[in-house]
Amino acid sequence: MKALVYHGPNNPVFEDKPKPVIQKNTDAIVKISKTTICGTDLHILKGDVPTVVDGRILGHEGVGIIDEVGSGVSNFKKGDHVLISCITSCGRCRSCKKQMYSHCENGGWILGNTIDGTQAEFVRIPYADTSLHHIPHGLEEEALVMLSDILPTGFEVGVLNGQVRLGDIVAIVGAGPVGMAALLTAQFYTPAEIIMIDIDANRLELSKKFGATQTIDSSAGNERVIQKVMELTEGRGVDVVIEAVGIPATFQLCQHIVKAGGHIANVGVHGKSVELHLEKLWGHNVTITTGLVDTYTIPVLLRTVQSKKLMPQQLITHYFKLSEIMKAYHTFSNAAKEKALKVIIENDL
Amino acid sequence: MKALVYHGPNNPVFEDKPKPVIQKNTDAIVKISKTTICGTDLHILKGDVPTVVDGRILGHEGVGIIDEVGSGVSNFKKGDHVLISCITSCGRCRSCKKQMYSHCENGGWILGNTIDGTQAEFVRIPYADTSLHHIPHGLEEEALVMLSDILPTGFEVGVLNGQVRLGDIVAIVGAGPVGMAALLTAQFYTPAEIIMIDIDANRLELSKKFGATQTIDSSAGNERVIQKVMELTEGRGVDVVIEAVGIPATFQLCQHIVKAGGHIANVGVHGKSVELHLEKLWGHNVTITTGLVDTYTIPVLLRTVQSKKLMPQQLITHYFKLSEIMKAYHTFSNAAKEKALKVIIENDL
Amino acid sequence: MKALVYHGPNNPVFEDKPKPVIQKNTDAIVKISKTTICGTDLHILKGDVPTVVDGRILGHEGVGIIDEVGSGVSNFKKGDHVLISCITSCGRCRSCKKQMYSHCENGGWILGNTIDGTQAEFVRIPYADTSLHHIPHGLEEEALVMLSDILPTGFEVGVLNGQVRLGDIVAIVGAGPVGMAALLTAQFYTPAEIIMIDIDANRLELSKKFGATQTIDSSAGNERVIQKVMELTEGRGVDVVIEAVGIPATFQLCQHIVKAGGHIANVGVHGKSVELHLEKLWGHNVTITTGLVDTYTIPVLLRTVQSKKLMPQQLITHYFKLSEIMKAYHTFSNAAKEKALKVIIENDL
Amino acid sequence: MKALVYHGPNNPVFEDKPKPVIQKNTDAIVKISKTTICGTDLHILKGDVPTVVDGRILGHEGVGIIDEVGSGVSNFKKGDHVLISCITSCGRCRSCKKQMYSHCENGGWILGNTIDGTQAEFVRIPYADTSLHHIPHGLEEEALVMLSDILPTGFEVGVLNGQVRLGDIVAIVGAGPVGMAALLTAQFYTPAEIIMIDIDANRLELSKKFGATQTIDSSAGNERVIQKVMELTEGRGVDVVIEAVGIPATFQLCQHIVKAGGHIANVGVHGKSVELHLEKLWGHNVTITTGLVDTYTIPVLLRTVQSKKLMPQQLITHYFKLSEIMKAYHTFSNAAKEKALKVIIENDL
Repeated sequence: MKALVYHGPNNPVFEDKPKPVIQKNTDAIVKISKTTICGTDLHILKGDVPTVVDGRILGHEGVGIIDEVGSGVSNFKKGDHVLISCITSCGRCRSCKKQMYSHCENGGWILGNTIDGTQAEFVRIPYADTSLHHIPHGLEEEALVMLSDILPTGFEVGVLNGQVRLGDIVAIVGAGPVGMAALLTAQFYTPAEIIMIDIDANRLELSKKFGATQTIDSSAGNERVIQKVMELTEGRGVDVVIEAVGIPATFQLCQHIVKAGGHIANVGVHGKSVELHLEKLWGHNVTITTGLVDTYTIPVLLRTVQSKKLMPQQLITHYFKLSEIMKAYHTFSNAAKEKALKVIIENDL
Repeated sequence: MKALVYHGPNNPVFEDKPKPVIQKNTDAIVKISKTTICGTDLHILKGDVPTVVDGRILGHEGVGIIDEVGSGVSNFKKGDHVLISCITSCGRCRSCKKQMYSHCENGGWILGNTIDGTQAEFVRIPYADTSLHHIPHGLEEEALVMLSDILPTGFEVGVLNGQVRLGDIVAIVGAGPVGMAALLTAQFYTPAEIIMIDIDANRLELSKKFGATQTIDSSAGNERVIQKVMELTEGRGVDVVIEAVGIPATFQLCQHIVKAGGHIANVGVHGKSVELHLEKLWGHNVTITTGLVDTYTIPVLLRTVQSKKLMPQQLITHYFKLSEIMKAYHTFSNAAKEKALKVIIENDL
Repeated sequence: MKALVYHGPNNPVFEDKPKPVIQKNTDAIVKISKTTICGTDLHILKGDVPTVVDGRILGHEGVGIIDEVGSGVSNFKKGDHVLISCITSCGRCRSCKKQMYSHCENGGWILGNTIDGTQAEFVRIPYADTSLHHIPHGLEEEALVMLSDILPTGFEVGVLNGQVRLGDIVAIVGAGPVGMAALLTAQFYTPAEIIMIDIDANRLELSKKFGATQTIDSSAGNERVIQKVMELTEGRGVDVVIEAVGIPATFQLCQHIVKAGGHIANVGVHGKSVELHLEKLWGHNVTITTGLVDTYTIPVLLRTVQSKKLMPQQLITHYFKLSEIMKAYHTFSNAAKEKALKVIIENDL
Repeated sequence: MKALVYHGPNNPVFEDKPKPVIQKNTDAIVKISKTTICGTDLHILKGDVPTVVDGRILGHEGVGIIDEVGSGVSNFKKGDHVLISCITSCGRCRSCKKQMYSHCENGGWILGNTIDGTQAEFVRIPYADTSLHHIPHGLEEEALVMLSDILPTGFEVGVLNGQVRLGDIVAIVGAGPVGMAALLTAQFYTPAEIIMIDIDANRLELSKKFGATQTIDSSAGNERVIQKVMELTEGRGVDVVIEAVGIPATFQLCQHIVKAGGHIANVGVHGKSVELHLEKLWGHNVTITTGLVDTYTIPVLLRTVQSKKLMPQQLITHYFKLSEIMKAYHTFSNAAKEKALKVIIENDL
């Protein structure tokens, strides 16, 4: 079969690989229908993720059709239409019993990382019973690809960890795919205002269509943003700020605009330590959370898609065939210029 | 009347001051029976708290008898036996309606800070209806002085913010009065283990009497402590770590010993920023909280004292008369040498 | 001044009464701008509420302008534009400290019950600081009259007690004003479906405009409704059922349509005991809640009105002048025929 | 093998049965070390549980050693020392994903009910991976038998559903094994008072040793009990009342002694409907919960036993061999006379 394979930094190759086979009786083989590219895949390609070795098939998102199941799989059978969680969970370890699947002792984020991933014709999914989800009849595949990772991430790590509540003022720093996912799902809880902050005017404009009530262009630096936020909040700051970038400057900004008693929900993947101003925050009654997505909200997100409370297809800007995946990577790598959020890659092979 | 007055750094004077009078009809004047000294008072004396000006009477803890009330006070009358909260709350502002009294727009921590405090024969308490508590019959005064600040601080900012739960492994960094208050109140929720960490062998020994199940001497540095904690937790780290010191090294330690999905509850008052290792913690699912005490738990703490579930007098190591307050300060300033935790100062004037 | 006065069962009289005066320094006198009639007022007129005595001015809802305040009132001054809570709270008693204002030891539901109410030119509001709310600039008075009682009741006692959550299937039994208030506010939490159940086809039709996704006509009896609900829920029943009628038959219905692990939130005012089928429900993991409104959500509801997430004016079907209040009562008493939900009564005197 | 077999009402026979075998690859066969008898077993023997058919081996509690596992079992292997949950859970269905294992679509309470149970030399456990628990080294078997059902039931359905909190006044109606389990586990959350109510003076006496702070003999009827509770609570009633009997009179009592804002947690298994006084309770802000145990707390209960916060062996009053099981039934059936709470039955065959 064809797959997108990592061969060291800046060297992805779309090449032939053997079709995966059942290794343990809890595995399933899924024929991929549609997949996508994540910001994490770009990090891997830069060589930033040392757990990814030469020869690894990338990708941890996707929907498809069950091709084969092991004898220990009871929830799924050949031909079932499934959504793949980016997080593999055994369902039995200490972490899984707490629904903290991201830290599953036998799984976690392994697809396209420590085992082969979804940017291929077929993928092997360990612990299929607890790592796949049935797709309800009548839902669009491409919308659901957004539920493998991006929407649960924005929702769980941003909105739920940040405890967005009715009537809150929420700020989201970073209008990339994850920030947009937080924007869409924050609205489940009817905050009064959602302020979107980014350096990209195009994305800010788009965020208004997705429900942002205010936007702030941060290209002139934090000072200006802080001043604007204080104007919008009678000098109090915001109830919840969601960090969806992952660099010291944006985390710094969050500390300045959170109100007393407020929440900072970090979603960004950070490569460096940051300065935490405890000399100011010690008495400010703030809560700071970090997290890797657990995808425990996929079932409820599926229900919101079914009942049309969430329209994940809004996040999709570009469409490619699997045979054009190199082109898809090119577009996604130049997101600002290409005005790209998420791309859909359809298996045409 | 006599009072302990701040006259600039390192210059406290026990001297005559006019007896306070009702200024607004929501005020009460309380004749102090017993008060104490807080670590914060030592910070003030070093000149570290710029809001405290020359001439200020110090102290924000105490019990006493109502001497006079304004016409707008309806809960208290002359002769009532009362516990003074270290936090003054108007009960009507936005913060008070959320029980975040520490950020009361008209009060907060003002006693012995921006208005005269409790280390005196009398004190004026603004918003008496919402800043004082009736003392139930039959309770010991000296035990209740511990409920003005130290016990609610350890409980609210350490135990409740840290979400100590049944069966948890809890670490408390710092066995000073606040750490000990956290130790006593953490037991309300029946954690499996409480590990006390400090550099003072005497305090660690004492912590065992207060319910610590493990102690670690941290005088040899963080490395050794981390190793010990990992041995005690099968390499997982602790569910909750309560920081009760307030320096970068101890906050650093907390980041190393908290387990995935765990909580760091900062109680320490920090003078400097700290390094937050988001490059490691971003995916570790941690929650970090900060806070100033709101004292919203004083009523329930009073009930636990009444039902003998909490014995605050355990924290008291030394007794003085108000006329000997300079000696009390001397002892409390040399806590390690004097083996002092909390001192009781009785009004003998 | 003119007021609507209760003179025994079925004998309301619109007559002259003395203008109220300050009795305690925590009182305020409010000049009513707009008021309304509640279902409870009809109960009173039938003689069903023994605490209401001959000569009582009715009404517990309204907005107006502060005419005078006592010396103990600090949050409000003459000329302030205010919303009156139907619940009077002292802010200091045990119940108030838990935000259970409905059981305030010095207040609770007293307006138009044990003290004179709001269907008059002026009303005296005890504990004004904690029983009134400032009206933000630019909001429509008539919309806010809905926040005195009906919207907090549907929201707190129905939606919040019932714990409506994202993706839930909710049933509301009774499409009267309170049921509609529950319908409007349930949408704050984005349930997947809201099923409205009533015997009045007109109200069911209206409920669709307000956001109901399904309606069931219950005029043919419970059997038919139960069957329909089971069809809509794959035989499981609903996550949350809100009882907004107050008779045994409707409470009975709730017990049949709640799913295992679900919630029954009783909002209806019951005159008789009901049969609780513990022989079936003991193992069904249900939660049943009852409650009188506390109006603790008025501040957040005001924010949702400001941010246009809630449009309370949708509930208003008829407009009258205060001088026409007898006509307003006539209309409201014949709600089905008149297609009335809530009426607005404007003070024209 | 030998087993206790139901042959119709009042006809239990200790007789030979075939040793169970693996039927699905997710099954395990456990050699029973110790088991016990539950009140439910007595109900079955009276013929009250129609799902139990002639020929069924009774029992749903026990500890033992794994004798054999199916190929789909990955958490357990032959020789492992295990605790059997009274609730069988597949871990994959809708209910299991919410931790409501009692309503598992493929399991629930089936042991000794719809499939053969634990009062035998061997038992087959379906979905072994999610229905068994490893026994930590060094714990006493007999104590752990109490964790199969009785302790999780009192804890989950009584204490947790009832939301027992710090400083609460709790009443427990019924001092049988489940009431006692609630008594022991309520103390995890440090209520101020626990009032035990029963008609058996011996059990009330015992409850004091287990931590009850007050006892009330209810043999003289509800009136007297209500009066006593009101005396003990300044006329307010209790914060939480746990019903652990299951008859209309005791549920009636609960409604009279619960305070405004309080909780009634029903644990008792009811055979008849009860009268719910909504004409009084509608405005009393109460929460009533029902539930079948899910046993989701077994892991944390194991930790509390390990850390000696819970001593389940306190509940054991009598010891028998499996060969004497008929005698054990005789004793347990005459609990009051025999002063029996829980019996331990050791497999000696």
